Amino acid sequence: MEPILHKYPLIVDMLDHIETACHSTVENGFHSRASILKDMLIYHMGWAEDGNLRKGKRIRPLLLCLSTHLCGGDWHDALPAASAVELIHNFSLIHDDIQDQSPTRHGQPTLWKLHGIAQAINAGDALFSLALNHIWHLSPRYNAETISRCSQLLTSTCLQLTEGQYLDLDFEKRNRVTMEDYQSMIEGKTTALLATSTKLGAMLATPDPDKQALFHLYGYYLGLAFQVMDDYLGIWGDEAVTGKSTSSDLLSGKLSYPVILGIERNNNFALRWAKGNIQPVDFTSILTMLDEAGVSNSTLSMAREYTDLAFVKLRAAVGGHPDCVIIEEITDWLVNRTS
Amino acid sequence: MEPILHKYPLIVDMLDHIETACHSTVENGFHSRASILKDMLIYHMGWAEDGNLRKGKRIRPLLLCLSTHLCGGDWHDALPAASAVELIHNFSLIHDDIQDQSPTRHGQPTLWKLHGIAQAINAGDALFSLALNHIWHLSPRYNAETISRCSQLLTSTCLQLTEGQYLDLDFEKRNRVTMEDYQSMIEGKTTALLATSTKLGAMLATPDPDKQALFHLYGYYLGLAFQVMDDYLGIWGDEAVTGKSTSSDLLSGKLSYPVILGIERNNNFALRWAKGNIQPVDFTSILTMLDEAGVSNSTLSMAREYTDLAFVKLRAAVGGHPDCVIIEEITDWLVNRTS
Repeated sequence: MEPILHKYPLIVDMLDHIETACHSTVENGFHSRASILKDMLIYHMGWAEDGNLRKGKRIRPLLLCLSTHLCGGDWHDALPAASAVELIHNFSLIHDDIQDQSPTRHGQPTLWKLHGIAQAINAGDALFSLALNHIWHLSPRYNAETISRCSQLLTSTCLQLTEGQYLDLDFEKRNRVTMEDYQSMIEGKTTALLATSTKLGAMLATPDPDKQALFHLYGYYLGLAFQVMDDYLGIWGDEAVTGKSTSSDLLSGKLSYPVILGIERNNNFALRWAKGNIQPVDFTSILTMLDEAGVSNSTLSMAREYTDLAFVKLRAAVGGHPDCVIIEEITDWLVNRTS
Repeated sequence: MEPILHKYPLIVDMLDHIETACHSTVENGFHSRASILKDMLIYHMGWAEDGNLRKGKRIRPLLLCLSTHLCGGDWHDALPAASAVELIHNFSLIHDDIQDQSPTRHGQPTLWKLHGIAQAINAGDALFSLALNHIWHLSPRYNAETISRCSQLLTSTCLQLTEGQYLDLDFEKRNRVTMEDYQSMIEGKTTALLATSTKLGAMLATPDPDKQALFHLYGYYLGLAFQVMDDYLGIWGDEAVTGKSTSSDLLSGKLSYPVILGIERNNNFALRWAKGNIQPVDFTSILTMLDEAGVSNSTLSMAREYTDLAFVKLRAAVGGHPDCVIIEEITDWLVNRTS
């Protein structure tokens, strides 16, 4: 696990409770004897007994619980919502893996590779249903009015996810994408669920609509910063640290933030990109074209700008809280991670 | 359209409102510019302008509205719930078509055939999200408490659907399925959403838990009757009327109610079935084996038994209502249809 996640006892405690809450949601959520369906989800989530599976970072539920805590609520009460956002994230990963034909995740075979496309689609649907059903476990600590608002926000966010995913899948078939298209795509695919997680956290601690809105914006800008940085690392990241070839985004023709910026700014790059079929031997000349247009620096400063905006919103909401430094450090780590 | 659905002005009016409500849910539900995603759903639902597409029968929303009406409510108020159940049904059809690799539905290419598996999975997810989000349009006519119960029932039902679907997909790989397995499968796959539709209809008209429970059981038994009859028609139905080869269930090796009964009752049939690879030339001998074991009659009387139970529950709840005859006729038609 990342050192930052070990530094504060509060974070260690939260991650521990989140893992237990998610696990018991899947373990106890089914009506019937469909035990293999449950086992598929247990495997995907990284809890299978026979494997030493790597789990996800559980960032969304962690930010949700931290938001509740910073807004003055008891984060333990928010755990059903934390489970829900993590399971929704994982439902989308199960379907993503089929859509991208990814053979592995966390170094293990993906669900569709093991059980076929048909059962993997269904397992994703099951996790989706389970997540949305689980939000009602916020009762009786919260009233029907509050849980209703959470449920509405979640289903609306899932719709946004699919709108972003539509664009992402569509981009693969296009060779021209505007910055506006890109923005729409990551707003659905990356920022929607992050912003919803931090907003839900606030909603479960305070009725103050301003604070809720600030936490929503904090998650929104964090999501943008995270994605732009992810795109930066996809080209200029340290291969030794990320573990994936930094040139893979160029090889795969992915229309990421720097590429779209490059196309808009540098005619040579745009012409070369349009030809497609980029090979490792082309890297040096392509990186030079991007450098000429200042794309690397612009991408980094865009990520920094979004991060600053995230901090502004966070501090406006809970800057005086003694534990604000914890979420600030996690924000920094998320954006400035090298992998 | 079926004559029965034209007979009563109330039904014509309901179906008209249901179609409009579903259409406007899809038309107005999206946040953004993902217009092709919307167009995919419009096409799937049978509303594309350039085609003379056959639509589904809209049975679930019709039964929901009728249940509201018979329990003394105004069915117009229940339309957002009616939309939701129809869209959930259609989300499951979009994913079913991928899972079964079906090239056509209602004589038109399926979504995955037209747009590929990746986009069709996502379109199903979008319709699922849209449906669950739309239930909140019951506000402000209903309070948060009531809508919460509806929302919980829907998400729990979706989970049951996936549990049934898991079994159905799994049956294709097995050559031995017990009657208990079969019952679990159709309880998830067929009866859950029907029973939820009739229960939701009652919930949106009366707080009386007994009436709600009776309507739930009515939908449950109707679902069982419907599925057993569907399985009967898959072997003994009139090919000229159903439009599909009545022998297709035998050819495809589908483990339907009569087949499972046959395996349990007749050793010759069980041995022949275990060998697989049934060809048209084998039909006469196979039908004789099933006849020897009285499977055809038992299947019909099982369907009749379930139908009778459905009527018992219905009459116990609203037998005195002057329009009870309408839902009774529709029930009869659903079970005794020949296609």
